[in-house]
Amino acid sequence: MAKRVLIIGGVALGPKVACRLRRLDPEAEIIVLERDNHISYGGCGIPYYVGGDVADLEDLYRTTAHTIRDVDFFRDCKGVKFLTRTEAIHIDRANKRLQVKYLETGNLEYLNYDKLVLATGARAIRPPFPGAELPGVHTVSNLHDAEQIKNLMKNGKVSSAVVIGAGAIGLEIAEAMTDLWGIKTTLIEMEDQVLPMLLGKCIARIATAELRKQGVQVLLEERVMQVRQNQETGGLLVQTSQNEIVADIVVLAAGVRPNTELAQNAGLATGRSGGILVDRRLRTEDPHIYAGGDCIELRNLVSGENTLMALGSLANRQGRIIATNISGGSSHFRGTVGTFCVKIFDIGVCKAGLTFRQARETGFDPVYAAVAQPDHAHFYPQAELMYLSLVADRKSRKVLGIEAAGLHGDAVKARVDTVAVLIRDGLDVDDVCSLETGYAPPFASAMDIINNAGNALDNILAGLNKPIDAADFLSRFQHESTRVLDVRGSREAEPFIQKYQERWLNIPQNELRLRYHEIPADEPFFLLCDTGARSYETQVMLDSCGITNTLHIQGGYAMLKATDPTFGV
Amino acid sequence: MAKRVLIIGGVALGPKVACRLRRLDPEAEIIVLERDNHISYGGCGIPYYVGGDVADLEDLYRTTAHTIRDVDFFRDCKGVKFLTRTEAIHIDRANKRLQVKYLETGNLEYLNYDKLVLATGARAIRPPFPGAELPGVHTVSNLHDAEQIKNLMKNGKVSSAVVIGAGAIGLEIAEAMTDLWGIKTTLIEMEDQVLPMLLGKCIARIATAELRKQGVQVLLEERVMQVRQNQETGGLLVQTSQNEIVADIVVLAAGVRPNTELAQNAGLATGRSGGILVDRRLRTEDPHIYAGGDCIELRNLVSGENTLMALGSLANRQGRIIATNISGGSSHFRGTVGTFCVKIFDIGVCKAGLTFRQARETGFDPVYAAVAQPDHAHFYPQAELMYLSLVADRKSRKVLGIEAAGLHGDAVKARVDTVAVLIRDGLDVDDVCSLETGYAPPFASAMDIINNAGNALDNILAGLNKPIDAADFLSRFQHESTRVLDVRGSREAEPFIQKYQERWLNIPQNELRLRYHEIPADEPFFLLCDTGARSYETQVMLDSCGITNTLHIQGGYAMLKATDPTFGV
Repeated sequence: MAKRVLIIGGVALGPKVACRLRRLDPEAEIIVLERDNHISYGGCGIPYYVGGDVADLEDLYRTTAHTIRDVDFFRDCKGVKFLTRTEAIHIDRANKRLQVKYLETGNLEYLNYDKLVLATGARAIRPPFPGAELPGVHTVSNLHDAEQIKNLMKNGKVSSAVVIGAGAIGLEIAEAMTDLWGIKTTLIEMEDQVLPMLLGKCIARIATAELRKQGVQVLLEERVMQVRQNQETGGLLVQTSQNEIVADIVVLAAGVRPNTELAQNAGLATGRSGGILVDRRLRTEDPHIYAGGDCIELRNLVSGENTLMALGSLANRQGRIIATNISGGSSHFRGTVGTFCVKIFDIGVCKAGLTFRQARETGFDPVYAAVAQPDHAHFYPQAELMYLSLVADRKSRKVLGIEAAGLHGDAVKARVDTVAVLIRDGLDVDDVCSLETGYAPPFASAMDIINNAGNALDNILAGLNKPIDAADFLSRFQHESTRVLDVRGSREAEPFIQKYQERWLNIPQNELRLRYHEIPADEPFFLLCDTGARSYETQVMLDSCGITNTLHIQGGYAMLKATDPTFGV
Repeated sequence: MAKRVLIIGGVALGPKVACRLRRLDPEAEIIVLERDNHISYGGCGIPYYVGGDVADLEDLYRTTAHTIRDVDFFRDCKGVKFLTRTEAIHIDRANKRLQVKYLETGNLEYLNYDKLVLATGARAIRPPFPGAELPGVHTVSNLHDAEQIKNLMKNGKVSSAVVIGAGAIGLEIAEAMTDLWGIKTTLIEMEDQVLPMLLGKCIARIATAELRKQGVQVLLEERVMQVRQNQETGGLLVQTSQNEIVADIVVLAAGVRPNTELAQNAGLATGRSGGILVDRRLRTEDPHIYAGGDCIELRNLVSGENTLMALGSLANRQGRIIATNISGGSSHFRGTVGTFCVKIFDIGVCKAGLTFRQARETGFDPVYAAVAQPDHAHFYPQAELMYLSLVADRKSRKVLGIEAAGLHGDAVKARVDTVAVLIRDGLDVDDVCSLETGYAPPFASAMDIINNAGNALDNILAGLNKPIDAADFLSRFQHESTRVLDVRGSREAEPFIQKYQERWLNIPQNELRLRYHEIPADEPFFLLCDTGARSYETQVMLDSCGITNTLHIQGGYAMLKATDPTFGV
């Protein structure tokens, strides 16, 4: 008899398992159960639908050939049966059967299974402050949420919004509302930076600068205390630890939590991060039950710890593996290095591995380099500056993480993806120095920014390059009296001398070999140039002249301006 | 006493060695010798200068901070001495001295060295046909060539041009002349495709289609027999095996040959490809002589064979390694996987590893998949189709090569670079299926084109996916009577039925499960859809119905149209 496979969840992983399984096993009975009436949609597209880049909701569940992915489509084209508006209630593992509830009728039924797949996903967290359940407070977990928010905006009901949480979805939603709808948007984050789980401080500041430049008010280190109805206007009042903000709408983007109740009630183990535990074949403790997508924990291949990664891309790759394994093959999912990308208005931001802070918390002794460099040959007209940060372990020299930002998002992605796939296998700093990537002037510099980041880190580890990052410099320059030695041309330095007076010393690099004796050898200096290359060169040269108390500002003025556009102005 | 390092060649590798060495060793005497008066320029930028993307010749030897890289710059900023218009004549290895000739005076002198670096580069090949030395026949090896050609065009002396050789430089120069100057340009290649050393046939055809679309006349499988002066017009006549073409200018882009005479005369070994042989520390047989850049042979890490790779990017990375080793460190250059990219008008083309043909010639049993897919989520507005081909060894399942083309060049580069860095370490097809790359709708599909190429290859190796590529289909459809089963909607199929009549059968995919009995089970069919996903699905489904004599067209109609825009029209 043909085996029956039940799949709980019909958005990303579920349909993928079902379709692949059908191709591998023409006989199996495959049923996908979904609580909602929408199935197989691109949930990651919600912010782009809200923001208008995607015009119709249907575009999110259309195929590349413009066919609607509905129950008929799956039946006719994929040979897969979908039961929508059907909720999985209880797994009876002993008898290999699943109790389901048909939501339209309220009827209950048991369905037997040979294999069961949990693709139950995750749901938005509603933080426990008073007012989180008010009608004007929305999450963006599914297409119903998306439609509701978009309709409010379409109907002109929203002129101000608060987004709570500066993770990826928070940023995307803040952009969507500001960009197309011109809504006055405030983004509130309780940590001291945006994307706190994803970025180190320099690249995070570049992201924040872009958000602010585009009109989003970004409030960091503020905690939402409560949301109240504004009695007079009917709008909402968001009260934080420092502010009170008026808003017509509040969007909760405080993260997601895996849907594991069904698994837990069936006695399946979950991990410390709250996801279902699976092996490398993506099987739960029960050999007949697989799980994948946003509801499981994944091994972080850099930290070695389990983690949650709610990403449609991982779900799809896991779906294929589960189908292969159910049909008798053997396919493994090793884990994740946390490769991630997000578009923030005009810039692309990507990262993989651990941030400096995460690396330290994990027990490494991290060190990092930050560089600024054109993404294409600098003489090529469309070149734009890219900012890239590379983290490694001091002792083993293993690369632990990479982050980058820039105006050419695909070019940023090219750098981060390339290093990311090697992090898994433990590449070290020397590998990055000579990493071979495609070169032609419209695509890269002869010495690509990846290589230069590796070189900088190699020089830092060798003690040749003594750096300070833009964020630390900005803080120390404000609070200490240390002077800057600016080795750019006098025209570039002039406005800074005007502003900072005796704190700003300018000796252009080409005059340094004659004029270095003007620099007091016992005084500390921050060294500055355009992008950090000449200030590093200067540091090495000054070291050889006995002027050794210097820190060179990584990424130079380009990085300062990108992280704090108000500096020097 | 400080050691003296002489570096022969002042364009790419030479200056890199010198500057890095200065930073590692403040004491060493470092002298770079260059025959030309131009130094440290971006030679790869020449086509962009000719084409006008780069306005001034000086832009090619300016730093990112707009400083001219001349002898003064290297002395003042880098602490490096340059001797220009100085030719290295003879290496006296026994006495560790180099005879040089000062070209301005004709004077000869011996310079002692502790370490010598050969960065002698390569020169353009002048093929041995009659007329290759005529005044109107140019190469594009250096800035003088570039200036000469550009001046001719600027002065309106050129209305037609012939470019001989469809390698990367040939393509770039053909584009430069056509695009800005509107010159009627003919590109002649003796092999049966453009970029014959770099691309397989499908992606090469996409490149050819782009060249033709933009007005370049591409002649393949034609050999230039001679170039003659046109007595009447004063122009040139290029006579090939099949044609006679009138041209005001002829550009030779038939490849380069390493400059090894100096090394050979000093008794240093060269390899079968004609480059200087070095070890992984980039040292020649003589422990005091290093070599790098376009004049050396590199290990191809996929084929295991030595190869020539004239790329500024490799030269720069090698330069750093040589400097490290000279200063007492130990740094290795392992070789190359041949990562390469080129812009051809509006598309980017990238590749790494071996083509199908090269893999077979090397002794592998190659198999490959070709896919067409949007580079970003298909619902995201700026998505464009990308075309990607992945080659693997049938037995070991190791990936041997990747090629891709598309309108978003950086996105193409992202895919190829990512796989390229893993090819070196022997990734297999399964790794590609679950390869983790950054995902967000503006940057990728949830199942990225890389993963789908891996999946397709996995399915081909499993015998589940029985493919034919676009090039083979186009040839077989023309010469055989096999019919096409088109599973797209009837509206898409209609014009093809009109044109190909009974050779074109249309059953939309969603009707197939009811109508498959209309398909004669014993007749062979080519299966077609938009991009190859549904035709593959159809093949699997038909197989399960006993209709097994089918080949699905990889990349679907998208790939057909990209490789031959005239098909079906």
